[in-house]
Amino acid sequence: MYRWMMSSDRVPEAWFNVVPHLAEPLAPPLHPATREPVGPDDLAPLFPMALIAQEVSVDPWVPIPGPVVDVLRLWRPTPLVRARRLEEALETPARIYYKDESVSPAGSHKPNTAVAQAYYNVEEGVHRLATETGAGQWGSALSFAGALFGLEVKVYMVRASYMQKPYRRVMMETWGGSVVPSPVDDPDHPGSLGAAISDAVRDAVGREDTHYSLGSVLNHVLLHQTVIGLEAKEQLQLAGEAHPDVVIACCGGGSNLGGISLPFVPDDGVRLVAVEPSSCPTLTKGAFDYDFGDVAGLTPLLAMYTLGHDFVPPSIHAGGLRYHGDSPIISSLVRSGRMEAVAYSQRDVFKAAVQFARTQGTICAPETGHAIRAVIDEALAAREAGEERVILFDYSGHGLLDLSAYDDYLNDRLID
Amino acid sequence: MYRWMMSSDRVPEAWFNVVPHLAEPLAPPLHPATREPVGPDDLAPLFPMALIAQEVSVDPWVPIPGPVVDVLRLWRPTPLVRARRLEEALETPARIYYKDESVSPAGSHKPNTAVAQAYYNVEEGVHRLATETGAGQWGSALSFAGALFGLEVKVYMVRASYMQKPYRRVMMETWGGSVVPSPVDDPDHPGSLGAAISDAVRDAVGREDTHYSLGSVLNHVLLHQTVIGLEAKEQLQLAGEAHPDVVIACCGGGSNLGGISLPFVPDDGVRLVAVEPSSCPTLTKGAFDYDFGDVAGLTPLLAMYTLGHDFVPPSIHAGGLRYHGDSPIISSLVRSGRMEAVAYSQRDVFKAAVQFARTQGTICAPETGHAIRAVIDEALAAREAGEERVILFDYSGHGLLDLSAYDDYLNDRLID
Repeated sequence: MYRWMMSSDRVPEAWFNVVPHLAEPLAPPLHPATREPVGPDDLAPLFPMALIAQEVSVDPWVPIPGPVVDVLRLWRPTPLVRARRLEEALETPARIYYKDESVSPAGSHKPNTAVAQAYYNVEEGVHRLATETGAGQWGSALSFAGALFGLEVKVYMVRASYMQKPYRRVMMETWGGSVVPSPVDDPDHPGSLGAAISDAVRDAVGREDTHYSLGSVLNHVLLHQTVIGLEAKEQLQLAGEAHPDVVIACCGGGSNLGGISLPFVPDDGVRLVAVEPSSCPTLTKGAFDYDFGDVAGLTPLLAMYTLGHDFVPPSIHAGGLRYHGDSPIISSLVRSGRMEAVAYSQRDVFKAAVQFARTQGTICAPETGHAIRAVIDEALAAREAGEERVILFDYSGHGLLDLSAYDDYLNDRLID
Repeated sequence: MYRWMMSSDRVPEAWFNVVPHLAEPLAPPLHPATREPVGPDDLAPLFPMALIAQEVSVDPWVPIPGPVVDVLRLWRPTPLVRARRLEEALETPARIYYKDESVSPAGSHKPNTAVAQAYYNVEEGVHRLATETGAGQWGSALSFAGALFGLEVKVYMVRASYMQKPYRRVMMETWGGSVVPSPVDDPDHPGSLGAAISDAVRDAVGREDTHYSLGSVLNHVLLHQTVIGLEAKEQLQLAGEAHPDVVIACCGGGSNLGGISLPFVPDDGVRLVAVEPSSCPTLTKGAFDYDFGDVAGLTPLLAMYTLGHDFVPPSIHAGGLRYHGDSPIISSLVRSGRMEAVAYSQRDVFKAAVQFARTQGTICAPETGHAIRAVIDEALAAREAGEERVILFDYSGHGLLDLSAYDDYLNDRLID
């Protein structure tokens, strides 16, 4: 067997909340001005109350509303795939499985939370969302979700991406989203994710009818992504595996990593691995501290690994991994030793991505290539050790709108 | 339920051959010089004997070799999806199902035959293939198949597409394919599919180690595509449908249309509909006659509907539908009245494609948009008539590398 599918009535009915399983309670977000813990009222201009409640929930499970499940069924459960051809090419005794999140309409795991966020906002009477996007994955996902729930979506897109990736903009516009380059007040600036967050927060705070939406980092975002790991657990059983020995995913803000790994946190004997770019080494070289989520200092301060909110990451092709900070949940897991972190250079990543394309057939997102690099190294280590390791990773997105990066790699133009 | 999946051990074990079910025997291909029926020896410089045998086979079923099935399992069976949200938007009593061929590594139905052709060539000791590609779908599929079977692939790409669609070229190169613009002997010419076929045939005829490969039109290509319709039949049973009332697909050379519709040819009460662009109206306005497959007159003459092999189709965005001729099998079905044909303008097509994206979520290839236009009109006719029609169509590919066409539509720059 190559792929384990489940029918659309097997979408999980509740999200898994990892918070009760953490080694220590999460440090509370602090108000950017007072530096006191933020309360629900502080967040109400930005988020619906249901999401604010999820942000601080300690319930072990959170039910998924029916209309959300109904939309997730358009592409979920996603396939669990065994990468047999890659295994054969590596001559490894490891068994490599991946969860294929690239099959969503927007081409990544991002819609898992976009759909939930769109739903809760509409439920509470909000009809317009403002958000930021770097490479365009998150803006695409929220525009898609907006189309399905009749919600107006305004996307502030990092200017460099806006200019270089017109296809991503068109994708958002096809779903009815409205896209502008950021920063809006400086047309000569190439922009950054932190600056685009500032633009989107300003928009949301300035308009009664508008909320803000974030595609990663926050607790409720990771919560929504746990459908990935929950489905994978069930599918691994179908594949005859008791449990994975190691779970691997790339990490920018931490949402796809959290999605696949959090349901395995309570399980003994399951290693969890975060993979990041060596040029934006938040977990491997950052400091654990309170820091802002954006450049302008408009967001609450979060306790996380950070390179500093004024860190300007080099313009590597894996735009989704160019973020100075990291999810507080992921940061907590790494800090307590429950999760490992490794970093790779771009060239090593694309070498792995091309090997994957030429064995398994599919062309992955550069972000996903980071996970594949770590998977290949893990499989080679298993060969070295003569061990039958079970490796699970998240195939977080396809690379069909990132092909210029492959062009640069194939023509030796990549700069690390 | 939204989607009917089948596990990877349910890939069909034999292809369905429609030839014994045609109203009349197919007229034989004629040699381009002698105008006598071609024999196997005439075709041997171009194709392996196994494919030549399939080209003239009258066996009702042709077994699929194990190594081919093994590769198809990387993405097959593809999902059968019910387009419930589109149905609701149209307020139609029709039930709309589609077979999602966009999930293949190359993003369309094309790999179904590319994999088989690569396999048979390698089996017969050929290690290099030459082919043409228009918009790039077929060249991508053959490059993918070449990577998996260790086969060198040379692609002659219509120059206009080569210049305008660098992502498609990069995709082929990522799989190890080698791509050059066509026509090779006239760098100022924008090119055409017919001219690129001439380039590829010349390459194959001129080299001992090289065969030619065609992605549509021929009998063996349509044979390989019947996995689509065979799986759909089984999945419709799982969905509780006795049979579809109408099967719809877009038609360029006829391979995705043949793939989904041929297994339904013997079934009473199932209408079959070909959809083509009004700017290249081969079936609706062409003549049924012997004609060349290419511009230079190097290929055998085929009995088919044709606009003339020197017909230069306008550069509409659905590059896969810009072909002067049509599959002899499809032509025979239309001529005998077993299949209907309709034509639509680009603007009507993109209007349908955007409606689909905003209800079902996914962004389709412009070619697939033609099928969706016809499906919507069929569903509206069902509403008008108050009939519960069951509509099946082929979602032949995604539009992620065709987003500039959506940009033109959304900004009112499309020219019909």
